[in-house]
Amino acid sequence: MTPVSIDLNADLGEGFGRWRLTDDDQLLSVVTSANVACGFHAGDAATMRRVCGAAAERGVRIGAQVAYRDLAGFGRRAMDVPRDELAAEVAYQIGALEVFARAAGSAVSYVKPHGALYNRVVHDEQQAAAVVEGVELTGLRLPLLCLPGSALHALAEKAGLPVVAEAFTDRAYTAEGTLVPRASDGAVIHDPAEVVERSVSLARFKVLTSHCGRPVSIRARSLCLHGDTPGAVGLARLIRARLEGAGVRVEAFA
Amino acid sequence: MTPVSIDLNADLGEGFGRWRLTDDDQLLSVVTSANVACGFHAGDAATMRRVCGAAAERGVRIGAQVAYRDLAGFGRRAMDVPRDELAAEVAYQIGALEVFARAAGSAVSYVKPHGALYNRVVHDEQQAAAVVEGVELTGLRLPLLCLPGSALHALAEKAGLPVVAEAFTDRAYTAEGTLVPRASDGAVIHDPAEVVERSVSLARFKVLTSHCGRPVSIRARSLCLHGDTPGAVGLARLIRARLEGAGVRVEAFA
Amino acid sequence: MTPVSIDLNADLGEGFGRWRLTDDDQLLSVVTSANVACGFHAGDAATMRRVCGAAAERGVRIGAQVAYRDLAGFGRRAMDVPRDELAAEVAYQIGALEVFARAAGSAVSYVKPHGALYNRVVHDEQQAAAVVEGVELTGLRLPLLCLPGSALHALAEKAGLPVVAEAFTDRAYTAEGTLVPRASDGAVIHDPAEVVERSVSLARFKVLTSHCGRPVSIRARSLCLHGDTPGAVGLARLIRARLEGAGVRVEAFA
Amino acid sequence: MTPVSIDLNADLGEGFGRWRLTDDDQLLSVVTSANVACGFHAGDAATMRRVCGAAAERGVRIGAQVAYRDLAGFGRRAMDVPRDELAAEVAYQIGALEVFARAAGSAVSYVKPHGALYNRVVHDEQQAAAVVEGVELTGLRLPLLCLPGSALHALAEKAGLPVVAEAFTDRAYTAEGTLVPRASDGAVIHDPAEVVERSVSLARFKVLTSHCGRPVSIRARSLCLHGDTPGAVGLARLIRARLEGAGVRVEAFA
Repeated sequence: MTPVSIDLNADLGEGFGRWRLTDDDQLLSVVTSANVACGFHAGDAATMRRVCGAAAERGVRIGAQVAYRDLAGFGRRAMDVPRDELAAEVAYQIGALEVFARAAGSAVSYVKPHGALYNRVVHDEQQAAAVVEGVELTGLRLPLLCLPGSALHALAEKAGLPVVAEAFTDRAYTAEGTLVPRASDGAVIHDPAEVVERSVSLARFKVLTSHCGRPVSIRARSLCLHGDTPGAVGLARLIRARLEGAGVRVEAFA
Repeated sequence: MTPVSIDLNADLGEGFGRWRLTDDDQLLSVVTSANVACGFHAGDAATMRRVCGAAAERGVRIGAQVAYRDLAGFGRRAMDVPRDELAAEVAYQIGALEVFARAAGSAVSYVKPHGALYNRVVHDEQQAAAVVEGVELTGLRLPLLCLPGSALHALAEKAGLPVVAEAFTDRAYTAEGTLVPRASDGAVIHDPAEVVERSVSLARFKVLTSHCGRPVSIRARSLCLHGDTPGAVGLARLIRARLEGAGVRVEAFA
Repeated sequence: MTPVSIDLNADLGEGFGRWRLTDDDQLLSVVTSANVACGFHAGDAATMRRVCGAAAERGVRIGAQVAYRDLAGFGRRAMDVPRDELAAEVAYQIGALEVFARAAGSAVSYVKPHGALYNRVVHDEQQAAAVVEGVELTGLRLPLLCLPGSALHALAEKAGLPVVAEAFTDRAYTAEGTLVPRASDGAVIHDPAEVVERSVSLARFKVLTSHCGRPVSIRARSLCLHGDTPGAVGLARLIRARLEGAGVRVEAFA
Repeated sequence: MTPVSIDLNADLGEGFGRWRLTDDDQLLSVVTSANVACGFHAGDAATMRRVCGAAAERGVRIGAQVAYRDLAGFGRRAMDVPRDELAAEVAYQIGALEVFARAAGSAVSYVKPHGALYNRVVHDEQQAAAVVEGVELTGLRLPLLCLPGSALHALAEKAGLPVVAEAFTDRAYTAEGTLVPRASDGAVIHDPAEVVERSVSLARFKVLTSHCGRPVSIRARSLCLHGDTPGAVGLARLIRARLEGAGVRVEAFA
């Protein structure tokens, strides 16, 4: 039997100038993939440099967390950005991060849309195509970390880009394997014990219990952890420990 | 006798979003090196992409015009940016531009500071060192286009980076070969005929007439043209024609 | 018979820092109401001050042209801004402009949403309510210049704020008196003579010929002119001359 | 004997969008004057509205904390902003805040420059004059909270604006009564007990012990507390308690 493995990803470097948000050092001791903010929703150049250095030092993979240009809204407000602008903005962000990844002896090895853009490219084909075009512009053929079943997932595959599916074990899923919308009751799972248990279930059996109580098959190569709330790092650490205790190999996706 | 040659550089892509400043298409038919704005004082991602594409198509060399983060002030207001921030910001800008240059089948092949940063690194060793550090971070060992005698020139050479000296034939020089400060009377030469004549003198004899009427030796491999004022493109075109008519080879520096 | 009168409004002060867009001086000699950009989609503080001074000097009414916070997109990209944020941002912009209007011996005397926000509040009740709340926050009970039939028009009236309906004579209307969407064929009327003729028809008879050739009644107290395209100022001047020639009094709304 | 009184001021509302910095609610229970960030170095519109509401509710005076336009640098990087731009930017910030203060049933009742601008106007007469001009533009004749002996203090007085001198009891003073520059050894006093003791000495006797151990007379109507470091609020609370214990009336300046 091949050993089961999973990647753990989290958003890092989401401060800006004087402001800090995530505890980057702590998170880097837990995750295997760091989604580094590239300056559009968060992340200034000096922070990007520092986070890339710290990630490289610990062997954590560096990914470009690309976002709408919206510091005031932290990239959480959907925006109707024309395709050519968005494609160029995605490429711009990846290129800027690549400098710091390379300077740290590493490389940008995947791309993950952030916030409202992440949600938008689940269904918006224009913007999903823009993200794919932006990645293609870099010439780096980077994998896209995204939701299975999303427009981005489909278009990236069609373009021949690698795709890595991710799951959220602190979010409820429907019986069809899609996320319960955030506005719905019970969309977010707050009980740490339940999140830990779901994480192990996902990694070992590729199964989560859906919102309505039925097992649903979820194929995800990466699990998204959060680092921006009190107790988040502690929970992330616990998830990793329990995964390893259950014989799951925690490692970056190939 | 080896033929005399000179590079012509100008700032391009200095719009932002809805706003335009330079006539990029016209300028690209005159210059051999395009200083492309990288988003900090001007230049959005879509513009950078477009300008890189147009430059590559015409065989014009692409340079990163790095600046203070100051859209409101167009990078013309001196700022006390700490060294580590400035170094990272310089690297960020070059990395972002590199994506578009590469996508156009070209590459960023030099770096030129813009506006207040250009003036600051003439004498500010901290900021000059930051620019050098920013270039080194990219790992691209790019030449710096700068003023001979400047702190940046000295520090870049010391760091083993190539340096390309440039001159301004629409600016007055002192007998010592330094620029007459803009605030002084006669600092800017407005007569087109005089600027043309000085350009030929510079390229052919490496000599300009100083502010006080004496010939002064100016070693410059590149001549900076301006494109953001009415008539500027016409003057640039005239300078190029007269240089070629005088047997000067107009070509990018090696 | 009471003489017919109409207000002419246009966007002004839509530069930013080094960039200019509108020919403010020329426009101020044509319009009776100036929609002054307040810094969110365009307009810096020094420009706002200058435009308010020039408007006051010529007796042109000053309005706050409020927008999404989006310099890169010139406020033309729809954004999902939460109601409380948007309300506060609207109030912020009006307050900032009020200082310069007052300093010029005038006052902000109306509010007009810009670009994507203008279009959004036609149907989005949340954002329309946010704009109304923002205006109410200022305590100035300012009229809203907006499209008749829009959600903003309805909510402003409901809140007891004065509403001023405006029309666009360079845009096609449906038989129901709504604008033909920009993406449709023939949505924009490019023939200057036709725009002039429609302007006179609107002012004198409150009637425009619809897209499908039928007369449609349009009640509008203000006519929006454009100033950001070549020839726009000339057309604006011509419209005003022809209105006055047809006995229409061109004056700011009461 | 007239009872001794002092004002306590602190910076509030210094978050931006998703980011928080100061514990505004806690600080509002200690200070009598709130320096509210106005959006240029920190502070978004929704935060300004909220802070003004909370300050008004507790009877805390609202001041405009005006700054350079520099979110990335938190207003801590000196900038060579031309006088007319800076004056307009100061007025813009005050006007924006005035809306929220008024909506809360209060008013902006003083102005305090922030960060690098605060330090710059100690000696830079051009920028000090710009701040004075910005305040005058508002027509509100607001007092300036600033360092005694500064260029701003002098120019504001000359312009007939009220001036309120402030002191820092966690900073060392020279025998001449000026601040020891931050870069010098011992410039910042880290021992909370010493800061408390100095605060009482300042309020009761208008005397502080200078860097070199000699008593120096300091005339200050307001004492600046800090709220952005761990333990800062606790120290602020302790200072207030000890001042009141020593019979000092803690109240906003008249």
